[in-house]
Amino acid sequence: MKPLGPIPPHFPAQGADLLIAGRPARAWAQEHGTPLFVYDAAVVRARVAQLRAALPPAMRLHYAVKANPFGPLLALLAGLVDGFDIASAGELALITAQGIDPARAGFAGPGKRDAEIAAAIAAGVTLHCESAREVERALALGEAVGRRPALAVRVNPDFDLRGSGMKMGGGARPFGVDAEQVPPLARRIVASGAEWRGFHIFAGSQALDAQAVIATQAATLDLALRLAHEAQVPLPALNLGGGFGIPYFPGDMPLDLDAVGAALAQRLAEHGPALHGTRLTVELGRYLVGEAGVYLARVVERKESRGEVFLVTDGGLHHQLAASGNFGTVVRRNYPLALANRMDAPADEVASVVGCLCTPLDRLADRAALPKGAEGDVVAVCCAGAYGATASPAAFLGHGPAVEILAENGLPSAG
Amino acid sequence: MKPLGPIPPHFPAQGADLLIAGRPARAWAQEHGTPLFVYDAAVVRARVAQLRAALPPAMRLHYAVKANPFGPLLALLAGLVDGFDIASAGELALITAQGIDPARAGFAGPGKRDAEIAAAIAAGVTLHCESAREVERALALGEAVGRRPALAVRVNPDFDLRGSGMKMGGGARPFGVDAEQVPPLARRIVASGAEWRGFHIFAGSQALDAQAVIATQAATLDLALRLAHEAQVPLPALNLGGGFGIPYFPGDMPLDLDAVGAALAQRLAEHGPALHGTRLTVELGRYLVGEAGVYLARVVERKESRGEVFLVTDGGLHHQLAASGNFGTVVRRNYPLALANRMDAPADEVASVVGCLCTPLDRLADRAALPKGAEGDVVAVCCAGAYGATASPAAFLGHGPAVEILAENGLPSAG
Repeated sequence: MKPLGPIPPHFPAQGADLLIAGRPARAWAQEHGTPLFVYDAAVVRARVAQLRAALPPAMRLHYAVKANPFGPLLALLAGLVDGFDIASAGELALITAQGIDPARAGFAGPGKRDAEIAAAIAAGVTLHCESAREVERALALGEAVGRRPALAVRVNPDFDLRGSGMKMGGGARPFGVDAEQVPPLARRIVASGAEWRGFHIFAGSQALDAQAVIATQAATLDLALRLAHEAQVPLPALNLGGGFGIPYFPGDMPLDLDAVGAALAQRLAEHGPALHGTRLTVELGRYLVGEAGVYLARVVERKESRGEVFLVTDGGLHHQLAASGNFGTVVRRNYPLALANRMDAPADEVASVVGCLCTPLDRLADRAALPKGAEGDVVAVCCAGAYGATASPAAFLGHGPAVEILAENGLPSAG
Repeated sequence: MKPLGPIPPHFPAQGADLLIAGRPARAWAQEHGTPLFVYDAAVVRARVAQLRAALPPAMRLHYAVKANPFGPLLALLAGLVDGFDIASAGELALITAQGIDPARAGFAGPGKRDAEIAAAIAAGVTLHCESAREVERALALGEAVGRRPALAVRVNPDFDLRGSGMKMGGGARPFGVDAEQVPPLARRIVASGAEWRGFHIFAGSQALDAQAVIATQAATLDLALRLAHEAQVPLPALNLGGGFGIPYFPGDMPLDLDAVGAALAQRLAEHGPALHGTRLTVELGRYLVGEAGVYLARVVERKESRGEVFLVTDGGLHHQLAASGNFGTVVRRNYPLALANRMDAPADEVASVVGCLCTPLDRLADRAALPKGAEGDVVAVCCAGAYGATASPAAFLGHGPAVEILAENGLPSAG
């Protein structure tokens, strides 16, 4: 038997039912069909409010579109956050389709093509340059499109985010400019006449340890100020990256956001006037939307094979690659998962929940303690709001994408 | 330094160029843009011819659509193989869109929905039933759609394919009916008046060891005959599964197909009249198309970071999840990869080839010995014909799908 991850507190049980946005999961499944992603707008709003309360008032919040580019979710976030981080011209098109001003966006990512750089400059997006070569390309393309580019330098720091699920900095990296090479590049940008937008320093993601986040933010502030000082350039803006994690697995504890906020406030106070005039941003994707999403699939068959029980669903890894344990995972652990119409029944059976793909990789829960499930039951996979639908191979085996809805007080939002 | 997998022999070098279908990779990249999948029709034809020559003449060949459902490839295979194996109603629609008669198809897979079963029966597809429950559903749905269903039983054997990359049988499985429960179910189908289509026994995939394939085929034949005998039913058809692997990684040796064919011929001769009237099929996906495909991406930037060289491309794991080592892989190894416009240069530099996604997972080659690469170079990832485009998260980070073409003697096929 393998334990399941913790169901986020936003989704309570009411009798037999798991509630999503105040409404039974089975009602959502009935109305919209399965497989289905439901994103609860109230959970996103609450998370942003929690961040605003915990972080120093000067901190700006950006949403990293890659976590979940679903249109209605972007439209919701447009009214909640201060800006957007995009990673491609495709994501630029997605935000503009929602009426979001591209001037609110920053574009980071290795391998930007000329056409992408030109489109971003033309739209007024801040480019987070990943190399000296990219700065030169951006300056040339800015001339070509007749617009002064807004340029920041993405720094590959000489440290990483301890305990992070994914290290983005430290050592040799394809991301950013090695810290030691940054000062001349910053001077070059300022001298070029481009709009100078400071630094972007992203050390890692998915950390649950507040002390690790605190240490990384402190090191990031120190590094940015040191680099600006060495370069003798102003520091108009600093994107501190993100790295705030959410609990996915058994034993995971939520990040102590208040501790992070208090330490950051103290750091800002200590740096004092050195940071006057610096626009400070944290960039969050998963932390804003990950816990807001639930993936619902229906049990097509209850099957017993040689003493093991399988609940075979109409969902699977084609929508939930990460939950299946096949996306950059070394040891597979179970995501939070429930039989959403049997919340009042004891978990007195060990069963595996599998998807409908004809591959042994397609497993949503491995030998978990669950109520005795049956055909027609609704399976809820939690923490499905980030790196779900678009981070999975939706076309695999021809089943196609899942339906996605944004739930606003029990009502789906138009989208 | 980590070695690269072996480039398949179908793609020779001519001077500086890797040739695909007789034409330089850089010409394909220039004409169709990158990222690009090129599938070489001649390689598929040659592989089918090799199979026809090596296997006993009675063996029928099926193509498993899940390996690569690209339309022009399906159309090509329609003239080469005897049937198709599909895994969803979506795949049924893909083959019918190519004018392929659904009566040539078998449908296996757990979690078949009612609508899928009904569509398959109405179209004359053979259903490979995964459980007794699915048989009952199929019989009821056959009545509902007014057509006699063609039913086979997918058997979960009591053995697996030794050394296979992915075990599909043996032990407790969501796939198929445990062998020991098959005889009464076979009798039930025959008694129901459905068209009885025999057994489907798929023990594993991606095996390179001919002895393992030979042993599995022998065990599969024995099991099928024993189950038919126990059930006292005829054996009109037997799908022996596939499992024929292709070399992806350093040290991998091609499957000895002649040995497999000779052993199978001997087995068939030994069984003699017991198999008269049994239509025998092998079901192959990867083995038919895997080596025929090359994925081309262009180097957007050559980057050095703290002593390491990165060739940053416009492709990535959004098209080549398996090559990035993130799809069911425990230990990441390098696929076959080349700088397709520097084939005559010595591999005197160690470089990592990365994609354009802003994640450290996006790596196509890890610290490989390559010629010194530069901006504009064309990277070729080989063995990209199966489980590539549709088995990858194409929407991730908004870059969108790659272009796919079927090359026929240096000319792209209309598709």
